[in-house]
Amino acid sequence: SYEKGTGGAEIRLHSPLSMPNATGYLWNKKMMFQMTCRGYANALHMQPEPAKYAYGQSFEAKTFMQPEHHYYSGHPGRFFYIKLSNSDIFSLPYEPTRQTLDKFAFIQGQDTLRWEIEHANIQFTLRVTLADDVALEDWRLDIVNKSNNEIHLDIYPCFTIGYASWMNQSARFVPELNGILGEYITPYQKAKDYPKIKQSMDKTLFIADSPIESFDTSTNRFLGEGHMHCPDGVKHSSLFNSTALYETPIAVLQHKIRLEPRQQKKLSWLFGPCQSETHAKTLSNRLQQHITAKPSYLKQGISIQTPNADLNHMINSWLPRQLSYHIESNRLTTDPQTRNFLQDHLSSIWLNPTLAKRNLLLALSQQGKNGAMPDGILLHEGAELKYINQVPHSDHNVWLFPFVELYLSETNDFSILETTVGFGDSDHESTVSEHLELACDYLWAQRDHRGLSLIQQGDWCDPMNMVGIQGRGVSFWLTFASAYAFGIWSKILKTTQDTIRAAKWHDYQQILNDTCNTLGWDGDWYARGITDDDEHFGISRDQEGQIFLNPQAWAMLSEAPTPEQADKMVNAIESKLRTPFGYCMLAPAYTHMDERIGRVTQKFPGTAENGSVYNHAASFYAYALYQQAKINNTNKHNDIAFEVLFSMLATDSDCLKRGQLPNFIPNYYRGAYHQLPEAAGRSSQLFNTGTCAWYYRSVIEGLFGIKQSKGSLTVKPNLPSSWTNASISKKIFGANVRINIKRGAEASVSSDSNNLQIEGSHISGFEAKKTYLISVIINE
Amino acid sequence: SYEKGTGGAEIRLHSPLSMPNATGYLWNKKMMFQMTCRGYANALHMQPEPAKYAYGQSFEAKTFMQPEHHYYSGHPGRFFYIKLSNSDIFSLPYEPTRQTLDKFAFIQGQDTLRWEIEHANIQFTLRVTLADDVALEDWRLDIVNKSNNEIHLDIYPCFTIGYASWMNQSARFVPELNGILGEYITPYQKAKDYPKIKQSMDKTLFIADSPIESFDTSTNRFLGEGHMHCPDGVKHSSLFNSTALYETPIAVLQHKIRLEPRQQKKLSWLFGPCQSETHAKTLSNRLQQHITAKPSYLKQGISIQTPNADLNHMINSWLPRQLSYHIESNRLTTDPQTRNFLQDHLSSIWLNPTLAKRNLLLALSQQGKNGAMPDGILLHEGAELKYINQVPHSDHNVWLFPFVELYLSETNDFSILETTVGFGDSDHESTVSEHLELACDYLWAQRDHRGLSLIQQGDWCDPMNMVGIQGRGVSFWLTFASAYAFGIWSKILKTTQDTIRAAKWHDYQQILNDTCNTLGWDGDWYARGITDDDEHFGISRDQEGQIFLNPQAWAMLSEAPTPEQADKMVNAIESKLRTPFGYCMLAPAYTHMDERIGRVTQKFPGTAENGSVYNHAASFYAYALYQQAKINNTNKHNDIAFEVLFSMLATDSDCLKRGQLPNFIPNYYRGAYHQLPEAAGRSSQLFNTGTCAWYYRSVIEGLFGIKQSKGSLTVKPNLPSSWTNASISKKIFGANVRINIKRGAEASVSSDSNNLQIEGSHISGFEAKKTYLISVIINE
Repeated sequence: SYEKGTGGAEIRLHSPLSMPNATGYLWNKKMMFQMTCRGYANALHMQPEPAKYAYGQSFEAKTFMQPEHHYYSGHPGRFFYIKLSNSDIFSLPYEPTRQTLDKFAFIQGQDTLRWEIEHANIQFTLRVTLADDVALEDWRLDIVNKSNNEIHLDIYPCFTIGYASWMNQSARFVPELNGILGEYITPYQKAKDYPKIKQSMDKTLFIADSPIESFDTSTNRFLGEGHMHCPDGVKHSSLFNSTALYETPIAVLQHKIRLEPRQQKKLSWLFGPCQSETHAKTLSNRLQQHITAKPSYLKQGISIQTPNADLNHMINSWLPRQLSYHIESNRLTTDPQTRNFLQDHLSSIWLNPTLAKRNLLLALSQQGKNGAMPDGILLHEGAELKYINQVPHSDHNVWLFPFVELYLSETNDFSILETTVGFGDSDHESTVSEHLELACDYLWAQRDHRGLSLIQQGDWCDPMNMVGIQGRGVSFWLTFASAYAFGIWSKILKTTQDTIRAAKWHDYQQILNDTCNTLGWDGDWYARGITDDDEHFGISRDQEGQIFLNPQAWAMLSEAPTPEQADKMVNAIESKLRTPFGYCMLAPAYTHMDERIGRVTQKFPGTAENGSVYNHAASFYAYALYQQAKINNTNKHNDIAFEVLFSMLATDSDCLKRGQLPNFIPNYYRGAYHQLPEAAGRSSQLFNTGTCAWYYRSVIEGLFGIKQSKGSLTVKPNLPSSWTNASISKKIFGANVRINIKRGAEASVSSDSNNLQIEGSHISGFEAKKTYLISVIINE
Repeated sequence: SYEKGTGGAEIRLHSPLSMPNATGYLWNKKMMFQMTCRGYANALHMQPEPAKYAYGQSFEAKTFMQPEHHYYSGHPGRFFYIKLSNSDIFSLPYEPTRQTLDKFAFIQGQDTLRWEIEHANIQFTLRVTLADDVALEDWRLDIVNKSNNEIHLDIYPCFTIGYASWMNQSARFVPELNGILGEYITPYQKAKDYPKIKQSMDKTLFIADSPIESFDTSTNRFLGEGHMHCPDGVKHSSLFNSTALYETPIAVLQHKIRLEPRQQKKLSWLFGPCQSETHAKTLSNRLQQHITAKPSYLKQGISIQTPNADLNHMINSWLPRQLSYHIESNRLTTDPQTRNFLQDHLSSIWLNPTLAKRNLLLALSQQGKNGAMPDGILLHEGAELKYINQVPHSDHNVWLFPFVELYLSETNDFSILETTVGFGDSDHESTVSEHLELACDYLWAQRDHRGLSLIQQGDWCDPMNMVGIQGRGVSFWLTFASAYAFGIWSKILKTTQDTIRAAKWHDYQQILNDTCNTLGWDGDWYARGITDDDEHFGISRDQEGQIFLNPQAWAMLSEAPTPEQADKMVNAIESKLRTPFGYCMLAPAYTHMDERIGRVTQKFPGTAENGSVYNHAASFYAYALYQQAKINNTNKHNDIAFEVLFSMLATDSDCLKRGQLPNFIPNYYRGAYHQLPEAAGRSSQLFNTGTCAWYYRSVIEGLFGIKQSKGSLTVKPNLPSSWTNASISKKIFGANVRINIKRGAEASVSSDSNNLQIEGSHISGFEAKKTYLISVIINE
């Protein structure tokens, strides 16, 4: 059904029918653009708040990016009607006519979306890229007459603008622009909103480089008694040259093309938001100079060769692209959740450590003097905490510690700990080290009389909002996560010779683990929490939400379970949470509101936090299994850990069920496998997810067992039992290191360089910019 | 193009093409239902906040009812696909197939919407009514085989449910209900919203009384590669029996019908919101007992016979229905603007004086102790000021006075003035009379150093929000309106023998009028206001917004202009504001933001407050012209006054341009006649409007010159010069009075009853429940 292009440069889908919602995505510094293989599009640009320049047909609510976005006739799209001289009409890329095309390919490239289509002896190559520094879609169409006859074509690019405003919306043809300008006023009522409205890019530009025969800007006039699949305007010999006067705007142009046999023609168009007619004129220069946005950090990542082609493909070509997207876009928000911000920028540590450092300091500068991290990190002057960031969550401090741990191990830049930075609510400046200590103090303080972490209105699980709404409910997950944070902090303090505090936080870690073992162990796994009314949940007695993945994974990370407990947990997870499409976050999914627990139980069963294959949680679990392997020096869970990773990938054998191409890892696949099998596996198509950094980290530190520390490298691979070899290339302290792993009779580590010191699996002596080859033999 | 049914019982439109957005509407105590002739629908129910049970295809913003609502493929609708045995497919009422039908009629009745359709030798009568006391649509389809052959039909009622929630949405077939239940959870994030969510009717019911062959509840599965005009489900021999699992729901059923020659079959369905499956079962009983909501007050209104059939039709049949809708629905809000509430319930004074009294007391109970009326009247415990009611407006006190004036004259119930009622911000109780005195005091106090009324962030003109945003800008309209209020209050005080205060408020009225004449007269008309920066606007020097209708009309009401000034104003209005579709509110319409004036200038030129034929303002003008006539004892403006009234009606000669049937008066028609002639006249299709009460009042008090006062009646008709006769029947102090007016050589008033005392045009002595005939002769 799909095909991976050479070298992972692209993914090619051969039908608009097999995975109708399969999408590709592009982005630049100012915008995100997602499009289905069939022609529907979602685009957001930042000004600095997220905004649209093409809308649906009704007055849409402002909302964050939603999973399983619904596409429908009338959805924003970029369509090209083609009318042949015999009046046959079809459309590129497929919508809205849905005419079967002789040949169809939808191709996600690294910086382009492309369609290669043949129909009626004409070859069409349609592609879109984004401008590098502004919100602007750059569309190009190459047409080749493959026949031996002269042909005449009418081409009607049709870019919907949609219902933008009840205050004022219109569109008109502007001859000087050779195109259409949609104009609207973002609706508002309060005078205090006017200064923002005044700045906003309330115009949509659509211009062509080729002569225009006719146009339409009124949706109703264009469609007439036809529908989107057969508009009156296209049936007619020319468009109606309509002007949308407080009507829903659309941008349709007619181009007449004559092609000799074998002749080729190229047309191009620009589409995007703009501020004024003058601004539109400036942008129109881009029709001549196409400067394409490219993901910045692709070459900074790792490269692997393993027996698993799907994994290689994702890790080498598509996951770094997704990491780059997160780093560069901050999920198209000006107030990313602190949790997301610190996890997304784990990727910056590998790809752009300078940016990673800056973002850590930015986050810490918004910490409260009491140690509490805020719900969201404000990226701009004037940004505000919105949506879920107005609900108090208890976990934000935790995420500092995995970040700092990875930053120190990858960069060896311990000086950051002594860097001073202020607070969100005080002019006082403290060192990063003091900030982190305060963060631990706060986590330690936010516990109940039993010593368990108070959940407030949610922890990592955003919508778990009623467990602790009266101020008493606690989270075992958060208690483990706090213990994990203390463990990391203790190790860092040990490295910096602060042995007294190191011991204290190590003790505190143990105390939390012991408390959880006493109060949270349910027999075969750990409970999720205890409600305000003192009821455990996430336990075997529960009919729904019996077992949650996160407390198990994070118990492993915090080193709470004995090996026997760990085995029980793994077995329970295998029997209760594993599905053919990945590991569910909880099971069984809730089918009705549980007021002891809250909003998460109201989400549709098997979606999002209510028991989907929530890949973010699955990636924690993979990482935790690999950490377990390291701590207990065992490889018994290697195969399961790999299965956890592998099951997050859309592959040729299951992509139709998932409905997604392997160009990204989505935030979830439908879970509730036993409850609602018909929907299980379906992708959310949402590429915003904390999964990608932890997935990458699991491959590096887990699968390949590469860990850097204080300038030295440890390699302890955890390959699945069926693999005989694998290799990875990675920057290690600035050096280019390739590590080849093979199975053999006797484990060993060797190198092609005499300058490296090797002791067991520890290697040191790397010099920046040099190249090293390391050979690792692991037991057969 | 349309036809008025006998006795005004219905209006019949014969084509779905001539006025595609022509709508009918129904309502009951719980809901409003509006439907286009083609099958698209808008429905809101109150729980008590307005809510939907059928949504568009995208996540829609919550908003108030908007003018010129955009309909599109995928818009909520009630469709019936019909498939004949030869596989031909068409749909009732017209959408979504848009197949040309042999015969088509869309009929607005008083309590029903109906379609009479013939196609393929089958006669279809489709009708919808509302249940009387719950939010429930009652659909019935009668089918008659008009041919001599047996026919087989597949009937697929297709009721879209749409995108209801990103948290949870689904739909399933429920055999016990013989129908479909859509289920969703209104999206929310904050725990404080949960109690409301919990109460909300988050289910949509669609049930049938006839056997069901198959069903679909998943929009995407039903449509497949077809579109709404030709869904895969309908093409297929049976529907797919799909269940929507976190997918956009739809309710489609298949019924198989066999009809002998001339045989008739009846099917019926119910559609509406419900709380639970149990609630759904209760509602399903309504399939057997159809109890239809009827407008309550139709028979309470006036009845007229005049030479103008369009006026008769509107006044006798459709305007009282629209008045009833306003009274009963409060515009589908729980916090009606004070201005709207007091004007809409002018109608209650004629139709239900008890309700009128209750609502006046309700409004006054929310007055501030400082005399200020709030921006909105809260109708329910827990209701909140929303949308525009969060912006401070300066005119709300004014509306008390026309209300009280009409209430006293119609009911002669002066005891209301001594009724005590509390305040919004105090437990203290005062008499209505004291409340009104306070309201005047407040209006008097809210003036600037020049003695002009401060506008704050808007007056009657909601979006005129920047004239006084710095606290200095003033409104001539509001100054006149305050003077008018003082004048009314003074007259009431005089009637109640409070001569000192009567004189005081009369003096204050004069002072305001004098100030306006000194500072506001522009040479041919009055200015609209003076900005914060001391600039007059609405004056001849302005390029846009040169003249506003309201200050002229209200200057007449407050008796400010001399007869010479009045003539100049009338002439200016005729030359600058009159259009073939009515009188514009201002001209020329603003084409860009004027920051001295504000948001009104950002609305699209010729729509709403920015220079449309805003019928509410036009009805003030008509009323004012008639008041002028009375004050100056002249009939020179009678023809213009009638033209103002008549031009608000859609008639056979212009309804295609207006795009509306004469079943209601819309809030506006497009203005900007000289600027954007192609759109001028287009109806907003919005039947929420303050117009209707003032229109009714203008007909009663103005055109017919009927004024009640202290138990006596005055009749001074102002018929247009071309009319030779007219008659009106009206309740006068509980008596049934018919007044026949004819032209004759000598003016006179006579009666068929010796018990009436007649002095000039004053008549007294009416006894409740008796019937009187009065004959009035006016000069030829």
